[in-house]
Amino acid sequence: MKNQYVNLLQEGDYVNDYFVATRRDLRMAQSGSKFLGMVFKDKTGEIGGITWRNAVELAKVFEVGDVVNVRGRVNSYQNRLQIQVDQVLPLQESDYSIDDLIDAPDTSGDDLRSFRAILDSVQDPWLRKLLDAFWNDTDFVDAFGNAAAAKKWHHEYRGGLARHCYEMARLAEVMCELFPEIDRDLLLLGVFVHDLGKLEEMTHGLFVDYTDSGKLIGHLQIGADMVQEKMRGIENFPEKTRIQILHFILSHHGALEHGSPVVPKTLEAIVLHHIDNLDAQATAFSRIIGETRDKGQAWSDYLPLIERVIWTKDD
Amino acid sequence: MKNQYVNLLQEGDYVNDYFVATRRDLRMAQSGSKFLGMVFKDKTGEIGGITWRNAVELAKVFEVGDVVNVRGRVNSYQNRLQIQVDQVLPLQESDYSIDDLIDAPDTSGDDLRSFRAILDSVQDPWLRKLLDAFWNDTDFVDAFGNAAAAKKWHHEYRGGLARHCYEMARLAEVMCELFPEIDRDLLLLGVFVHDLGKLEEMTHGLFVDYTDSGKLIGHLQIGADMVQEKMRGIENFPEKTRIQILHFILSHHGALEHGSPVVPKTLEAIVLHHIDNLDAQATAFSRIIGETRDKGQAWSDYLPLIERVIWTKDD
Amino acid sequence: MKNQYVNLLQEGDYVNDYFVATRRDLRMAQSGSKFLGMVFKDKTGEIGGITWRNAVELAKVFEVGDVVNVRGRVNSYQNRLQIQVDQVLPLQESDYSIDDLIDAPDTSGDDLRSFRAILDSVQDPWLRKLLDAFWNDTDFVDAFGNAAAAKKWHHEYRGGLARHCYEMARLAEVMCELFPEIDRDLLLLGVFVHDLGKLEEMTHGLFVDYTDSGKLIGHLQIGADMVQEKMRGIENFPEKTRIQILHFILSHHGALEHGSPVVPKTLEAIVLHHIDNLDAQATAFSRIIGETRDKGQAWSDYLPLIERVIWTKDD
Amino acid sequence: MKNQYVNLLQEGDYVNDYFVATRRDLRMAQSGSKFLGMVFKDKTGEIGGITWRNAVELAKVFEVGDVVNVRGRVNSYQNRLQIQVDQVLPLQESDYSIDDLIDAPDTSGDDLRSFRAILDSVQDPWLRKLLDAFWNDTDFVDAFGNAAAAKKWHHEYRGGLARHCYEMARLAEVMCELFPEIDRDLLLLGVFVHDLGKLEEMTHGLFVDYTDSGKLIGHLQIGADMVQEKMRGIENFPEKTRIQILHFILSHHGALEHGSPVVPKTLEAIVLHHIDNLDAQATAFSRIIGETRDKGQAWSDYLPLIERVIWTKDD
Amino acid sequence: MKNQYVNLLQEGDYVNDYFVATRRDLRMAQSGSKFLGMVFKDKTGEIGGITWRNAVELAKVFEVGDVVNVRGRVNSYQNRLQIQVDQVLPLQESDYSIDDLIDAPDTSGDDLRSFRAILDSVQDPWLRKLLDAFWNDTDFVDAFGNAAAAKKWHHEYRGGLARHCYEMARLAEVMCELFPEIDRDLLLLGVFVHDLGKLEEMTHGLFVDYTDSGKLIGHLQIGADMVQEKMRGIENFPEKTRIQILHFILSHHGALEHGSPVVPKTLEAIVLHHIDNLDAQATAFSRIIGETRDKGQAWSDYLPLIERVIWTKDD
Amino acid sequence: MKNQYVNLLQEGDYVNDYFVATRRDLRMAQSGSKFLGMVFKDKTGEIGGITWRNAVELAKVFEVGDVVNVRGRVNSYQNRLQIQVDQVLPLQESDYSIDDLIDAPDTSGDDLRSFRAILDSVQDPWLRKLLDAFWNDTDFVDAFGNAAAAKKWHHEYRGGLARHCYEMARLAEVMCELFPEIDRDLLLLGVFVHDLGKLEEMTHGLFVDYTDSGKLIGHLQIGADMVQEKMRGIENFPEKTRIQILHFILSHHGALEHGSPVVPKTLEAIVLHHIDNLDAQATAFSRIIGETRDKGQAWSDYLPLIERVIWTKDD
Repeated sequence: MKNQYVNLLQEGDYVNDYFVATRRDLRMAQSGSKFLGMVFKDKTGEIGGITWRNAVELAKVFEVGDVVNVRGRVNSYQNRLQIQVDQVLPLQESDYSIDDLIDAPDTSGDDLRSFRAILDSVQDPWLRKLLDAFWNDTDFVDAFGNAAAAKKWHHEYRGGLARHCYEMARLAEVMCELFPEIDRDLLLLGVFVHDLGKLEEMTHGLFVDYTDSGKLIGHLQIGADMVQEKMRGIENFPEKTRIQILHFILSHHGALEHGSPVVPKTLEAIVLHHIDNLDAQATAFSRIIGETRDKGQAWSDYLPLIERVIWTKDD
Repeated sequence: MKNQYVNLLQEGDYVNDYFVATRRDLRMAQSGSKFLGMVFKDKTGEIGGITWRNAVELAKVFEVGDVVNVRGRVNSYQNRLQIQVDQVLPLQESDYSIDDLIDAPDTSGDDLRSFRAILDSVQDPWLRKLLDAFWNDTDFVDAFGNAAAAKKWHHEYRGGLARHCYEMARLAEVMCELFPEIDRDLLLLGVFVHDLGKLEEMTHGLFVDYTDSGKLIGHLQIGADMVQEKMRGIENFPEKTRIQILHFILSHHGALEHGSPVVPKTLEAIVLHHIDNLDAQATAFSRIIGETRDKGQAWSDYLPLIERVIWTKDD
Repeated sequence: MKNQYVNLLQEGDYVNDYFVATRRDLRMAQSGSKFLGMVFKDKTGEIGGITWRNAVELAKVFEVGDVVNVRGRVNSYQNRLQIQVDQVLPLQESDYSIDDLIDAPDTSGDDLRSFRAILDSVQDPWLRKLLDAFWNDTDFVDAFGNAAAAKKWHHEYRGGLARHCYEMARLAEVMCELFPEIDRDLLLLGVFVHDLGKLEEMTHGLFVDYTDSGKLIGHLQIGADMVQEKMRGIENFPEKTRIQILHFILSHHGALEHGSPVVPKTLEAIVLHHIDNLDAQATAFSRIIGETRDKGQAWSDYLPLIERVIWTKDD
Repeated sequence: MKNQYVNLLQEGDYVNDYFVATRRDLRMAQSGSKFLGMVFKDKTGEIGGITWRNAVELAKVFEVGDVVNVRGRVNSYQNRLQIQVDQVLPLQESDYSIDDLIDAPDTSGDDLRSFRAILDSVQDPWLRKLLDAFWNDTDFVDAFGNAAAAKKWHHEYRGGLARHCYEMARLAEVMCELFPEIDRDLLLLGVFVHDLGKLEEMTHGLFVDYTDSGKLIGHLQIGADMVQEKMRGIENFPEKTRIQILHFILSHHGALEHGSPVVPKTLEAIVLHHIDNLDAQATAFSRIIGETRDKGQAWSDYLPLIERVIWTKDD
Repeated sequence: MKNQYVNLLQEGDYVNDYFVATRRDLRMAQSGSKFLGMVFKDKTGEIGGITWRNAVELAKVFEVGDVVNVRGRVNSYQNRLQIQVDQVLPLQESDYSIDDLIDAPDTSGDDLRSFRAILDSVQDPWLRKLLDAFWNDTDFVDAFGNAAAAKKWHHEYRGGLARHCYEMARLAEVMCELFPEIDRDLLLLGVFVHDLGKLEEMTHGLFVDYTDSGKLIGHLQIGADMVQEKMRGIENFPEKTRIQILHFILSHHGALEHGSPVVPKTLEAIVLHHIDNLDAQATAFSRIIGETRDKGQAWSDYLPLIERVIWTKDD
Repeated sequence: MKNQYVNLLQEGDYVNDYFVATRRDLRMAQSGSKFLGMVFKDKTGEIGGITWRNAVELAKVFEVGDVVNVRGRVNSYQNRLQIQVDQVLPLQESDYSIDDLIDAPDTSGDDLRSFRAILDSVQDPWLRKLLDAFWNDTDFVDAFGNAAAAKKWHHEYRGGLARHCYEMARLAEVMCELFPEIDRDLLLLGVFVHDLGKLEEMTHGLFVDYTDSGKLIGHLQIGADMVQEKMRGIENFPEKTRIQILHFILSHHGALEHGSPVVPKTLEAIVLHHIDNLDAQATAFSRIIGETRDKGQAWSDYLPLIERVIWTKDD
């Protein structure tokens, strides 16, 4: 049981409690000597840590993502509190309670159920088999339900991917009503598969970060491989359907410069790209407006990623 | 009553019937002499016309957009039929039947009714007054119901604007269910006003083209002026609402390089931009797929505007 | 009467005097606690302020732009002096002397007179009426004379807009001599109206900043509305002239990606855009060279906005 | 045996001989009637064909890529000869001699041998197994040896891919001498796999064109799938090697906007990208200079793809 | 004395008169046979020519830029007249009258005098010497007075460079009044030298085209070399002045992507760039408006270079 | 003899030893008072220095690039050590040992010899004369051997230019084997001259920085001037060769936006550009991987210049 939470630490406190380590950077000062910069996190916030003594040795003791017991003194540096670290020790899973460390709203179960309910309406026999191959894989179901949809910009929390897919499925349904020529089953499959690669592109545990394969081959390729692995388990899976599903995954960023090696070339693919974008941007704006209100501001800080400030509409 | 339709003309025919004139370009050949290039249209297609004799005089006889009686011989030039024009005479409205000239599916009434039904749910009293100011203006209602949403890319037919708005309103409704923090009344107003300027940016009669003010100030400014004219008729219209509605119009293209002088900075404005884009692109893809199928091709011709070919999914 | 000026404050001083408050940001430290960051300004410079105690309450006491009495201790933080603020109290206009707070060279009167002298040569009766409508509006004349032309890059001081317009009018006159086909009256009108919207896009008092409408609809739309309001007061103002004047305002940034929703399409509009640009860039270079010399450098610091360093030509 | 070659056809000839059909476009004239545009090719050149009679029926008789017997009259259209087609009949392979139809220098055998000789020096056991899996697949060896490296720009002939790989391997060897830290075995593997997907992205027979999967998923994905299929046949193929090889394929275009979903992030990958580019550009310049000389020009025509003219250095 | 002018040629005429040859392209038809495409020009216009007989031989008989006697029949091809050429013979200067061939307004003498009058006010002794070195070089004076400032866009006629420099000098003078910190002598030198390289980048006789060195090293390098050659003739020419003058030439396009290897980094250089641009664009708009009026159009054709249509303001 | 090296300085030390001064910036704090920021360097690293007392006077005592004796106290500021400077005194060359100050691997002699050995194979008599003109100029040989090829990104050490040229020459040789149509002598000349301007664009002594002419005219112009100066010493140097050599220098950056005023238009020029790029990028990746390993990281920090992280391939 944890006693010292980040948001209650004060200058001068001596810390002796556990946190998730989310950074561990061994740096060389310009003067040539080395120091270790760290970041520690619990469910209430995060705080930096630093040590100049035994930096090289300490860096070997733990990995980013470990839950560690930290000892050190809290001081103030550049208007921020940080811990002058004396000791860092990795813990076993039995040594800590995960609820002390993350505090995400656990509504992902609902979103997952709602999304699956929509997918259950898919009729096409091959797409049905493909969906079943995923839902019968319990490791997959578990991973999918716990995944975030992104590291930062939107749906960046546990269960975020399921929420994102549910919202897209709802938009897909309206589009199918308005445009009867859309192949509904196929589009819903597109919603399901478009971000599957994120399950392996990032870690989704206490600490979300890109994996080596995430950085080297990216979530489009990873997702294409995941889907094809399931397809190989289905005898005579139609080639025409296979390339359309890969086309969804590869084209869903909408443009080469956004990382899609091919651009959308079917009606379903262009719709998938735009509902993905619509949902992501609305979610990001909504999050930023909430954070801006929490800071008591009517206008957000400048957001370099989208080159603008956002208005809460508060006076 | 018309006897000679464009799609039935053959090399050698002598034409003597009426069409809409949609181009009238007096050109100088490199050799220095002038000729008049024309395009004539009826509900079945369009055909070029040319004359080298009395080109300057003939150019004064009619305007682009006029319904004219054309006399001349059909010949073949560069694999296309064209009319060697002898005479062009503008007609009165009583001289022709408009149904011979345009052949749009007249479903715009339905779309308009469906769209108004959704707008009727707007509760905010100021937005209500603004809507009423428009709907009580019969000239406006008539113009709105007959307008196209664009010259070429999407909803380019009479009633296209009403259809486009209805589709966007449907998408807006789902977004409001998924994101309860969206101001539903305001977003629906945004859908209504975003393209109003197109009523004056283009002519919407027999021949759709940009007007002088369309080319010089554009539909964003025109639309902002139209909305503000109605606002001036409503005593004490709230300033905060006024600038949000102008913000919708000015920002709905989403980016400076697409012609918006400001980028979307509220949740409703970013949603408006993306549902506009989603609906426009889906409609354009759908139209192109239809045209490609009509030509018996599985893949469309190369589309320079979106730098790709589109697949019908036919084999 | 003020005693403590920013440029004379030293580490350890206890401040008890008045300043303009130009920032007031309530922030949350990563540790979760809140602090209030402020900036205070007088005619000699600006200094930051910070408080961690009662940050939320203090933030409610004053607004950005207020003249306030500040109490606190000067200390040094990151090589800059700042005030550890104990108290901030807003003052009445009678409590302070504005000359202590701003120190702009008051030559704007001359520039305004010179600019009006050139405008007085406009002959076209409609343009004459439009100009008179503005010059007979004393609130407008006052605001125009006191306005800056920009927040930072060029003519960023009180009276800067009048100076900028005068310089452009001089360039316009030479262009009219060299190109007799330019409509001189119209071009001079363009110079006058092109930046009118800045009067409401920014505050122009003790503290220059963007207004809500500035951020949401921008100075092009604001300027177009201002001009049209005057036009509505002139019976039968010609439509062709109206759209040309709006075209000046809307196109004067020269390109979509620079925030103009339409590009210059007349001779006068292209000339207006380029003389605006020429004058703005020359003024900015001149200011930077002066500032660089004041720092005793031959080369300016790197300027990210224009991606270069500038040479004073000193050795 | 063929008698009538494209380069000898003259206006007025009646054609009755065989060609490869490389286009077959059913078009609608603006007037509404349909015609069929075709292109026919043999080893000496290509010539257009057209028919207005029975266009729809004729379009069903043959496929693009078929060898067909063509009957029709040669006439002149827009300074080019074309065939007014009366009849088109597809032939069996026994009905024609392929040497009449394509005329590529058959040196691909040599290039393939030279390239394989370099690959034979690869020592790493896993990479060895992967190479063997390909070379033991005779269908693959056949396809690889006959493939072009591109449709137009460089190495666009049968055997072009083998030539391109050989040249890159030679450059890779020098780079390894200059930079001993490069993993030579890995880089050579990169050269081998980088364009494998082109085997299925395009047809490589009598008529080179993109396939459906080429257009929908592209040669990067196709290549990644081909390599992974072989890897699955090798027990315990190391994951770290797998993602490096996929990284080669996915990153070799060097930048997102050139179609790579990830950019090169290892020393070997950046070298692979640049030697690919160096070889492709040198080959394209060399081809263009040759073609320009053949036309008796010192300067090439303007080349839109690279926005320049090229100099042969002839006077 | 010439009898047959381009603007009076009619279909069926037999031509036997002289023209300037401005193109001579030996092409291979797709069918493999060669033809020679030509363009001939006199002061009234230009007309294409073509021959299929003895194309290779005929191509050797004359050079582009030669004045030639042409024999052939006028026919019509794609709505344009062209000459089916039988014979082309180059003439001696004594064989023709240059006034038959070009028809530029000969006001360049005035512009040159006006420009030199402004330059005469330069006081700085080194800049004086540099100017004198040029004005004492009669070959240079002759070439400068006859030069065009560009091939197409602006001041594209004989004497155009002098006109362009005069206009820029007038603008420079106003800028110096408005910004007394500008080094007037230096800026005027900048106006004089900025486009000097065009004298050798293009031919400036009967036919304006790029030279080999124009295409390979460009007018910036050529101009820098010309100026430095004169500087080498002046003992102890100051280094600091030398690099500022080179800086003018190299930076005057204003941006790397417009072909300047360095961007303007002094006040004089930024002013030079912008007055160059202002004058060039105003001149181009003015020319296009004139041409559009001549064609009887209110709006110009679409101009791909500047991506817009231009308005004459005529109704 | 030096006793106090940067990498051994500790908080609290009193420094009294010599260093190279690499920055000397007189700044005004926002509060209005001035301070002097400095950077000092020796072969082990660099350390900042600051003084608030007598800042203006101290700034006059030394120049950037001087070797100076520094007195002051080491303290810690923002996690970095810096010297609170009391005194700075410039030294004579006899007062210090250069080996204390820079520590580059002295292998440049070997690289230079290897590069010259390849150049010795050039046969063309004019190119031979040009090379000899350079190699017979001992000042040049000395400067060339000691030059860096860049300030930061690649070959940024003494002798780096010779290394870079040697590597490029090796790549050029393979390209000549693969493409016999390349003019080998000319391409090798291109390698030699392409970066010559860097000798004067930057200082290459204890402190590498851009010179005034480097910033104002750039290394392309400087290099072109250096080469032409040698050419002027060779009677009848062929014009065609001259412009090809200038074309190498001016086009070697490959694109306008990378600072080349002309793009490569010959086979040799395009090859030169690409081998330059290949060698530079491989060298930069190799250096970054080394530095990343030294910091004990598997992935480099984010590199803004190339917008990516780089993998060492270590686990």
